[in-house]
Amino acid sequence: MDFGYDETTERLRERLTDFVTGWVYPAEPVFERQLLDRTDPWTAPPVVAELQAEARRRGLWNLFLPGEHGAGLTNLRYAPLAEITGWSPSLAPVALNCAAPDTGNMELLAEFGTAEQRERWLTPLLEARIRSAFAMTEPAVASSDATNIATRIERVGDEYVINGRKWFVTGAMDPRCALFVVMGRTDPTAARHRQHSQILVPRGTPGVHVRRGMRTFGYDDSDHGGHAEIDFVDVWVPVGNLVGEEGSGFAISQARLGPGRIHHCMRLVGMAERALELMCRRVADRHAFGGPLAAQGVVRDWIAESRVRLEQARLLVLKTAWLMDTVGNRQAHTEIQAIKIVVPETVEWIIDRAVQAHGAAGVSQDTPLARLWTRARALRLADGPDEVHRQSLARRELRRHQPRNPGMSHV
Amino acid sequence: MDFGYDETTERLRERLTDFVTGWVYPAEPVFERQLLDRTDPWTAPPVVAELQAEARRRGLWNLFLPGEHGAGLTNLRYAPLAEITGWSPSLAPVALNCAAPDTGNMELLAEFGTAEQRERWLTPLLEARIRSAFAMTEPAVASSDATNIATRIERVGDEYVINGRKWFVTGAMDPRCALFVVMGRTDPTAARHRQHSQILVPRGTPGVHVRRGMRTFGYDDSDHGGHAEIDFVDVWVPVGNLVGEEGSGFAISQARLGPGRIHHCMRLVGMAERALELMCRRVADRHAFGGPLAAQGVVRDWIAESRVRLEQARLLVLKTAWLMDTVGNRQAHTEIQAIKIVVPETVEWIIDRAVQAHGAAGVSQDTPLARLWTRARALRLADGPDEVHRQSLARRELRRHQPRNPGMSHV
Amino acid sequence: MDFGYDETTERLRERLTDFVTGWVYPAEPVFERQLLDRTDPWTAPPVVAELQAEARRRGLWNLFLPGEHGAGLTNLRYAPLAEITGWSPSLAPVALNCAAPDTGNMELLAEFGTAEQRERWLTPLLEARIRSAFAMTEPAVASSDATNIATRIERVGDEYVINGRKWFVTGAMDPRCALFVVMGRTDPTAARHRQHSQILVPRGTPGVHVRRGMRTFGYDDSDHGGHAEIDFVDVWVPVGNLVGEEGSGFAISQARLGPGRIHHCMRLVGMAERALELMCRRVADRHAFGGPLAAQGVVRDWIAESRVRLEQARLLVLKTAWLMDTVGNRQAHTEIQAIKIVVPETVEWIIDRAVQAHGAAGVSQDTPLARLWTRARALRLADGPDEVHRQSLARRELRRHQPRNPGMSHV
Amino acid sequence: MDFGYDETTERLRERLTDFVTGWVYPAEPVFERQLLDRTDPWTAPPVVAELQAEARRRGLWNLFLPGEHGAGLTNLRYAPLAEITGWSPSLAPVALNCAAPDTGNMELLAEFGTAEQRERWLTPLLEARIRSAFAMTEPAVASSDATNIATRIERVGDEYVINGRKWFVTGAMDPRCALFVVMGRTDPTAARHRQHSQILVPRGTPGVHVRRGMRTFGYDDSDHGGHAEIDFVDVWVPVGNLVGEEGSGFAISQARLGPGRIHHCMRLVGMAERALELMCRRVADRHAFGGPLAAQGVVRDWIAESRVRLEQARLLVLKTAWLMDTVGNRQAHTEIQAIKIVVPETVEWIIDRAVQAHGAAGVSQDTPLARLWTRARALRLADGPDEVHRQSLARRELRRHQPRNPGMSHV
Repeated sequence: MDFGYDETTERLRERLTDFVTGWVYPAEPVFERQLLDRTDPWTAPPVVAELQAEARRRGLWNLFLPGEHGAGLTNLRYAPLAEITGWSPSLAPVALNCAAPDTGNMELLAEFGTAEQRERWLTPLLEARIRSAFAMTEPAVASSDATNIATRIERVGDEYVINGRKWFVTGAMDPRCALFVVMGRTDPTAARHRQHSQILVPRGTPGVHVRRGMRTFGYDDSDHGGHAEIDFVDVWVPVGNLVGEEGSGFAISQARLGPGRIHHCMRLVGMAERALELMCRRVADRHAFGGPLAAQGVVRDWIAESRVRLEQARLLVLKTAWLMDTVGNRQAHTEIQAIKIVVPETVEWIIDRAVQAHGAAGVSQDTPLARLWTRARALRLADGPDEVHRQSLARRELRRHQPRNPGMSHV
Repeated sequence: MDFGYDETTERLRERLTDFVTGWVYPAEPVFERQLLDRTDPWTAPPVVAELQAEARRRGLWNLFLPGEHGAGLTNLRYAPLAEITGWSPSLAPVALNCAAPDTGNMELLAEFGTAEQRERWLTPLLEARIRSAFAMTEPAVASSDATNIATRIERVGDEYVINGRKWFVTGAMDPRCALFVVMGRTDPTAARHRQHSQILVPRGTPGVHVRRGMRTFGYDDSDHGGHAEIDFVDVWVPVGNLVGEEGSGFAISQARLGPGRIHHCMRLVGMAERALELMCRRVADRHAFGGPLAAQGVVRDWIAESRVRLEQARLLVLKTAWLMDTVGNRQAHTEIQAIKIVVPETVEWIIDRAVQAHGAAGVSQDTPLARLWTRARALRLADGPDEVHRQSLARRELRRHQPRNPGMSHV
Repeated sequence: MDFGYDETTERLRERLTDFVTGWVYPAEPVFERQLLDRTDPWTAPPVVAELQAEARRRGLWNLFLPGEHGAGLTNLRYAPLAEITGWSPSLAPVALNCAAPDTGNMELLAEFGTAEQRERWLTPLLEARIRSAFAMTEPAVASSDATNIATRIERVGDEYVINGRKWFVTGAMDPRCALFVVMGRTDPTAARHRQHSQILVPRGTPGVHVRRGMRTFGYDDSDHGGHAEIDFVDVWVPVGNLVGEEGSGFAISQARLGPGRIHHCMRLVGMAERALELMCRRVADRHAFGGPLAAQGVVRDWIAESRVRLEQARLLVLKTAWLMDTVGNRQAHTEIQAIKIVVPETVEWIIDRAVQAHGAAGVSQDTPLARLWTRARALRLADGPDEVHRQSLARRELRRHQPRNPGMSHV
Repeated sequence: MDFGYDETTERLRERLTDFVTGWVYPAEPVFERQLLDRTDPWTAPPVVAELQAEARRRGLWNLFLPGEHGAGLTNLRYAPLAEITGWSPSLAPVALNCAAPDTGNMELLAEFGTAEQRERWLTPLLEARIRSAFAMTEPAVASSDATNIATRIERVGDEYVINGRKWFVTGAMDPRCALFVVMGRTDPTAARHRQHSQILVPRGTPGVHVRRGMRTFGYDDSDHGGHAEIDFVDVWVPVGNLVGEEGSGFAISQARLGPGRIHHCMRLVGMAERALELMCRRVADRHAFGGPLAAQGVVRDWIAESRVRLEQARLLVLKTAWLMDTVGNRQAHTEIQAIKIVVPETVEWIIDRAVQAHGAAGVSQDTPLARLWTRARALRLADGPDEVHRQSLARRELRRHQPRNPGMSHV
């Protein structure tokens, strides 16, 4: 057992820290100004491309992607880097071409895509020439139970016809988003987990109607392409656009969850570090009732609680990454669920305390806190609400205790 | 001891319920559409004036205001009406001319205003011909400690000159907002609670610079005039614009707190009722994992907890209203603080559960929940963060136990 | 709506406060000494009888019992008195002959007993010449679901034969406990809520085996007769011992719940007042790190939270008592469940904070706090765990929202 | 970074698991019976010595002690073993001669004792021929602030005279407890952290008056020597009994804290595993309202929350052990405080849920749960209440953020 980062990780952390503090932090106010000055309300400001160029020059590019197409890092090595990108979650991940949902789509194409699919879509995504989206959630059904997904993908000759409505398709409002990965039902008569497939739909395909941007607590998230509601009405695509085989949609979905969780959770840990830092600075500077806020016992209690909960959360994510690397995603299932349960909730709580410590400024646009909070809150629902994962984790725990097996009492 | 509403109250509740369900609810989608279609981004849509006309016709007008200028209701009779307006907080209060901050300003003018001030400002406010704002909070100081307020109001001859920066001046972005009530320091050498005064500043006065709208989470709250940041630079107003006497600013501030708390808290209770109702309907309709969400134990637990906490919160607000009516605001100080501590937190929790039960829809613009939540969250900071009130309430509780007095152990 | 106690209540509160502070408090250390000096480990010390004599002399006797047999108070008038007895829950209730489970048994006999049953058992109970117990919970089944109760009561000629095991029969270890009210199944073939009956079993009946005293967190509660485990093995009693008619056991059980909850909950409120008072005194006196504990923000936060939660809990219990008096126990069902859910939990939390503020003394025998906590904790399980009541309350709340009925959105 | 136990640890875990499940678990009911049958109410039952003999035979002896006198394990290797002893905390630690407070006293003697002190006291302690106690806490002062400790140790010629009252001296009621390590003030005029010393006081020394056993909730903890209140009245001991040098008492105290925390916290983790296992079995077996409790969503929620919180707590303790081994106790200060803050609270919560799932049985003597809970609760106060550690940890966190140092944002 060893809780230290290895040399490769330490070296990358240092380089990434330099980049984030030296380039990304100074770009934050520029980004905000450019957002206000945009003519198209859904495009990313030009400073993003500048940061991407610099990151690429520094070799900080596609760090998330294992294997030949990316940086080839293990989950355990990438996780601490994802944390650092969480310090500036609107800019740092995209600067490194490590932003969701492109990351998940690139993983999908790298692992399950045909040579042709990879050439047409993976290559430009790896170079950030286009963006992509993942169309999974549907307004009409409880999508946390993926077997509910009702969008129809029907084979007709050498083509598939797609019909259905999706929403919260993150990134899809950005006109540069060229590809939608769509989950739908190819065979309603198959076994419950073999009914669905995933298919590639180019943006311009007739019948694809991007209707509106969904908001999260007032934010349109137009800085990273928003969250679209999309109607697919008689959308025809060639059979070669199917990802993997028919009926594999659910399994492929599961495969993208593990790494996605690590990324999300470590970015959240980084976001909480940023919030905690802002809280500490604020309360040291701000005075009321005869002293700095930092002298108030309740404020200190928040800070201590934040630190203690955050350390635990980080350790659990890192252990999960290590398990995925050593015994595989399947064996790490409990931990992958555990971090989904605990990290967004913990981070939401910490950011909320930072908001409170900032008073009115905390809820306003003058600190990143309100927006950070909203991201954390939304992640308690993304990939299914916490409650789904809790029930499932408990079922496994209950099973473990059926035969008496006290020597194995921990996960 | 009697927990039933009296006849007057019951009759008004019935009439108001009819109005809100029969007129306000149907107006909600109209309001949303008109908001999207506005040309001026800070004005209220026309449906508001239509509702106001109907409310006035029905005698549901200025219900909040005791005494000759208003409906003359006690706090205990108005409270249950304020709750009903909380079912639709963006529309119902304004429809009845019972929306903050105008309510507080009207109370202020009715109680402390000169005949001239009342004629010029109170009359048009009572008829909803203009709107008004209260400029208290400052970005540069912890304004929860009101003695920190630094804006300078200096007497020069027969005028006062005002210099300072305010923010979160609710309603002030609306061009119809004609009056700012400004809190500032008239005498830095006076005793701590006698340094400040309140003064009336007409919108058009030279030196008043409305700089920008502040946001709460992602919302600009432009539907009710937003929250302005305002610079006052060498703003000259006649001495007759002072409210009350010099040095009375802090005392007048305190006076507006009691009724304001009752209004805010009862509206919050109504907002929580709306959220709870939406949650119950949603979970009855939505199915996942083989049954309606309403069959899930955890969801039921939220509902039970919501109901139980909400009943308690309402009772405490009503008791506070009763105390204010019977022993006065001063004697009800503990309870006025208690409701500020407990109601926003309780209601925020309930709305958060309703959001969670709605999944992605809950954070979006398709239900009122995300916006309701943001209102509740902001009210944990408005009038000073919860923590200030907790410390103060505890100090009084500690004092009560100095001499042994077990027979008086409750508030 | 009126939140003041009426004159009768105020007068009784004053007299009871005099008695508790003037007689009960000074008796507490005497009681503790006498407990240590007992020869029989399950009998009440002699000071109890002295207090009873004094209480009776002062007309503070059987206050809990409505109707001709007792003091004839409404629930709303008795509730604030029960609260005062909670200041000293080991002595005050028994001193007034208002201690559970005798109170419930006296209500049962007064309401459902035959003239003969009343003469034989109610009369001596009203005079505190004997004590009684209620044998409901069984170790072998989840007794919170009363239809699970498996003890068999079989009619054979003019007698009933009882077989089964009960536990946590409070008071039954005291040799003065002369009567057991036993709940059991008379007809396993009847409808689910008509299978059970209640029956009177005199202590000396052959086949009644009191096996051992159950403990709660280390306490044997021998000061009020402990909690017995009892085997009933072929216990024959005459048919005249049945309470009410066959099959009415469940209904009678429900009938005793309402007033019982009010009593328990208001005593709990009184216990919390005592704990809060002890906490306030302690932190004012105790110094660490350069000042009194009372100066620490976190301690003040506990005190404020305690006061605010306690006020709300009290109001909800009082409203419930008022509802029971005005619309009946059946219509007050939601509130009766609500107070069971919220009061023990609230009071447990407050006492826990008082324990923490006392350091090691708080968990020891040198303050009443650890024992008070244990009572509150046990009451989260007595009458069924909180969770059962939460699920049930939620079911009713869900039903209320089936048809849209916004005007009735509160309980 | 590597989250797996090394081979040595795995081997020891296996051997210890065999011993605890094969020998200690079967001894638990024997122990309970022997406790009831004791004649001396403060001695350990004979089964303890039998278990010790077996453990020693198996080489599972003094595992806690690093260096030449003990098993020589690192903190990181011992921690997972301490966890296993937590499965049966009344028997397993003492069976291995790894029970507090003897462990801390042996560490003290091994590290700071003179050759003579080690021969006289360490040798018999290592062989479990005697027991020992640590007299630190005083009833009259807030002992969490160690500089408050008021017991006087005054040098007179070649002797020290000790005067003062201590309480919660764990183990001291057992007549086999031969040694008291006493903390007291040797020089009231020295600097604040140099005033105190630790001194060895043999039980029989004149002036040592063991007055009574303190209780925690209802437990006297007589199975492991209780918690004594002791008066030291003119107790003379030779100067050679001082541990270390004069004025080093505070520093020595700090030194024993680090390993002690690891031991306590990992035992707590083991206790929580036991409770979680009991909860899972119980809810699988128990039926109510038409199904096993395990089918209820709220119960599953407890189980998931328990597992997730427990995994995080364990990781934080293990990381702390690793830090102590690699960078030293001083550098691990934040983490040593963090585990004190989070582990007892987490474990208390988990055990409370297990109690609730057991209904009445959970609070009784028929499961180990109520006792486990009480241990966890008491540990929130032992070594100072949580709050002290929270304030201190927050102070350090605030200092870290004084200069901007985002690259070091985690502990």
